Amino acid sequence: MARIDFQTDPSHYRHWRLEFNGDTANLIMDVDETAGLFEGYELKLNSYDLGVDIELYDAIQRLRFEHPEVKVVVLRSGKDRVFCAGANIRMLAGATHAHKVNFCKFTNETRNAIEDASDHSGQAYLCVINGTAAGGGYELALAADHIILTDDGSSSVALPEVPLLAVLPGTGGITRVTDKRKVRRDRADVFCTIEEGVKGARAVDWRLVDEVVPNSKIEETVKARAAEFAARSARPSGAKGIALGPLARSFGEDSVDYDLVHVEIDRAARMATITVDGPGRDAPADAAAIAAEGDQFWPLKLARELDDAILHLRLNEMDVAVIAFKSSGDAARVLGYDALLENAGDDWLAREILHYWKRVLKRIDVTSRSLVALIEPGSCFAGTLAEIAFATDRAYMLIGQLEGDNRPPPELHLNALNFGRYPMSNDLTRLETRFLGEPDSLDAARAVIGEAIDAERAEELGLVTFAYDDIDWEDEVRIFLEERASFSPDGLTGMEANIRFAGPETMETKIFGRLTAWQNWIFQRPNAVGAEGALRRYGSGRRPDYDITRV
Amino acid sequence: MARIDFQTDPSHYRHWRLEFNGDTANLIMDVDETAGLFEGYELKLNSYDLGVDIELYDAIQRLRFEHPEVKVVVLRSGKDRVFCAGANIRMLAGATHAHKVNFCKFTNETRNAIEDASDHSGQAYLCVINGTAAGGGYELALAADHIILTDDGSSSVALPEVPLLAVLPGTGGITRVTDKRKVRRDRADVFCTIEEGVKGARAVDWRLVDEVVPNSKIEETVKARAAEFAARSARPSGAKGIALGPLARSFGEDSVDYDLVHVEIDRAARMATITVDGPGRDAPADAAAIAAEGDQFWPLKLARELDDAILHLRLNEMDVAVIAFKSSGDAARVLGYDALLENAGDDWLAREILHYWKRVLKRIDVTSRSLVALIEPGSCFAGTLAEIAFATDRAYMLIGQLEGDNRPPPELHLNALNFGRYPMSNDLTRLETRFLGEPDSLDAARAVIGEAIDAERAEELGLVTFAYDDIDWEDEVRIFLEERASFSPDGLTGMEANIRFAGPETMETKIFGRLTAWQNWIFQRPNAVGAEGALRRYGSGRRPDYDITRV
Repeated sequence: MARIDFQTDPSHYRHWRLEFNGDTANLIMDVDETAGLFEGYELKLNSYDLGVDIELYDAIQRLRFEHPEVKVVVLRSGKDRVFCAGANIRMLAGATHAHKVNFCKFTNETRNAIEDASDHSGQAYLCVINGTAAGGGYELALAADHIILTDDGSSSVALPEVPLLAVLPGTGGITRVTDKRKVRRDRADVFCTIEEGVKGARAVDWRLVDEVVPNSKIEETVKARAAEFAARSARPSGAKGIALGPLARSFGEDSVDYDLVHVEIDRAARMATITVDGPGRDAPADAAAIAAEGDQFWPLKLARELDDAILHLRLNEMDVAVIAFKSSGDAARVLGYDALLENAGDDWLAREILHYWKRVLKRIDVTSRSLVALIEPGSCFAGTLAEIAFATDRAYMLIGQLEGDNRPPPELHLNALNFGRYPMSNDLTRLETRFLGEPDSLDAARAVIGEAIDAERAEELGLVTFAYDDIDWEDEVRIFLEERASFSPDGLTGMEANIRFAGPETMETKIFGRLTAWQNWIFQRPNAVGAEGALRRYGSGRRPDYDITRV
Repeated sequence: MARIDFQTDPSHYRHWRLEFNGDTANLIMDVDETAGLFEGYELKLNSYDLGVDIELYDAIQRLRFEHPEVKVVVLRSGKDRVFCAGANIRMLAGATHAHKVNFCKFTNETRNAIEDASDHSGQAYLCVINGTAAGGGYELALAADHIILTDDGSSSVALPEVPLLAVLPGTGGITRVTDKRKVRRDRADVFCTIEEGVKGARAVDWRLVDEVVPNSKIEETVKARAAEFAARSARPSGAKGIALGPLARSFGEDSVDYDLVHVEIDRAARMATITVDGPGRDAPADAAAIAAEGDQFWPLKLARELDDAILHLRLNEMDVAVIAFKSSGDAARVLGYDALLENAGDDWLAREILHYWKRVLKRIDVTSRSLVALIEPGSCFAGTLAEIAFATDRAYMLIGQLEGDNRPPPELHLNALNFGRYPMSNDLTRLETRFLGEPDSLDAARAVIGEAIDAERAEELGLVTFAYDDIDWEDEVRIFLEERASFSPDGLTGMEANIRFAGPETMETKIFGRLTAWQNWIFQRPNAVGAEGALRRYGSGRRPDYDITRV
């Protein structure tokens, strides 16, 4: 199968258009039905597959980095009479379970990225629905701050998954209906069982949309709302965006090499190692230099490469059981870049980079592979990079050095960024989550900010799982990797999804942990995916044949 | 298949013993390996099936109602060298998916009932682990307030589901490890992958147990801890328990009749109707009368019958798609009983009855069937009984009367109990959850306490989903029932599990919504339940053969 590539840019879009008009951008969905990612289906009625979502994700990223002037994004359809018909059903019916699940996860992350732009970058999303917004189409609309529905007697919003397809509105739909828009539960129940959806005044009354507007008034309403949201935006004035150029990558049989990120796959061990390189030189002196370096600024470049590497492994390397994270470089330099970002105050670009790291780290959190940090001589797990280690299921740290390797013993370094700038989707930092049962340990970790923490001290502080000296190191790591590769991938997926998110739940964790889990379950059930199931029979003119047992 | 009966009493227990010694009870698990609920497995090593859990549930109920003098329950094993080996694996391997899922749900509810007794009735649970507490055995221990592990070099706690069986510690285990005992996530990861578990000092250090004690000191330690917990208990002194006698029931082909609860099954429509009868006479004058009436006291009798009816439908009638709730009786009398309970102050028995109703209502909340209230002439959905309507997915209420039926038009009645005494597992009341997005509606509902609310007013207040007059009533209800029976049961299960619990999540909702969903998913996967899966191959000497794709 061809490699799925997450890199694109507006000049290559097949499905979206970006139009700029001062502080407002139009993000127009106009899916090319002949340009599906796989054979066997046509993307009719603005339905989408992963390829469509990859372009959307790219557009959202560029809006944040390349367009500081954009305060409002108007999300709308380029087609008459249909906003978006949701995920393509033939694609879903034909895709492997693993692809479906990872496709949905990426879709969820992309919708969260819309809300993140609004919450943290003053870039509000208005959604204009002409025609039908069904299933994933309405789920996409739900990510916006404000939904305007055309009042033309036929435009409607709908979540027809349960009645039509025997699956769920599982990419955030149900949770955003009940928890974001806080639709009354019995109305949500009715709404999710009406194939044709809800239109007009009822859609407002039930809080499914924010307003319904006659066709003749749509444009002036959009303009007025855009002006209102723009007036409230904290987006900077007069700032100049930076261009996100293509990533330098080379793919080998068992490797991917970026400038700063190196992926090696050991297929026998079912393990991928991701090594991230520290900065090649000291951080520049001030925030102005960040803009000057643009997409070559070390933290931004590394985040982009790491993001791409994770997505590549998720979708293209599904037999990889374990992702091991290593780092290589000078911790002091990493801390220097962190300090620059931390102290850049209200510099919009520094803020964007920190928020981007937050999102990349969250993407690691929900990656369904066993994650381990191997903290070895020559590594630079400091500040932001230490956060990668805290995102893993286990961290192994070497005590001292390895024979024949004269690099100094590894050290961990904490800084302020570990204590607030990178919340997980449960809204706690990774260290807060880690030390939920022992607040003293959190204080103890804060107290060692600025210190070089060796393996034994790191273990004592609870910052790593195990510290081993060179006698045990290789065996212990090998046993872990072998063990992990020998367990049921499904058992591990469920276990990790539950263990990683202790503490409070948020809309985001509810979507990833609860709604997704139910959808995964349903995606396995014959009533959906069996030969007589609803997904397979959709459009065939034959009704699905259900096993009626309730569980 | 023989009907699974949820009624039992200590004289019929095969698997548990209750011993009483002043303010302390011993609850001893001593499973009769020949007395499994089904053929094909032996309950070795104190492993359990649903039959074992039914007795445990009965014991927990009786401890609360029959033994107000008991302040501490010591949960321990009657066997040497094993506490409990968890759910029986051959039973799991042979059971239908629907049985497994419902078995796990009941097991979860029973463990929550242990925590409820501790939190609300001053009845603390001490767990003494001699030998192995593995899988569901340790999950059971986790429900206790205090876990004492024997320090004999071999006694251990373990969650070996992932490595051994390719399933999860899914009956609360993972969530109680991460969220109740707040075990550090990487330690939880290690713990859940060690077949042999953790023993001795490490078990304490990792917070998996509260103390380890040498064999020679176990009895004195239990005594000391029991005394400490008893000293802190708010359990009443000098109160006399009431006996929970057998329920009067008669089973017909398509019906179950209790004194106050009537279940009728329409198999063609795949619908069960549960009609609850209001009180036959006015509430007695004071709390003393509650004890005098004992298990015949209307609210208690009704709760017990309703509890049994729900469990019967869940496990014995798995083709029923919809449960319709009706009521029949005098609302004023219902409100009279509610007022008696509400105003009984610190009367222990009144409090127990309210908490029992809370648990029965929670059981309805998590029942995986479509739930509807049909509010018709002659009904008495008032106070506690109105809460049943609020627990449903939709409530239909008749405007006026039906032709040929001269009973008065239906009315809803609210009272104080609807505003705090019956929290859902998300810790909000049903009305708070319902009105999450519209606090004014909650205030409006509070303002009509004491009023008779007719259908149109109830719809306007948002207390019911739809109000129809006699012209539309029959058609609308029929269409709903037909529609519901035509949808995929799996889609509905997932949809309802997500819609019913808007708002905050708690350990309880995390267990039911998140952990359970992942377990359900895994219970479908070939890696667990396929012919080469771990559950099937367990004990065969052959290793499972896994599909290694990660999803």
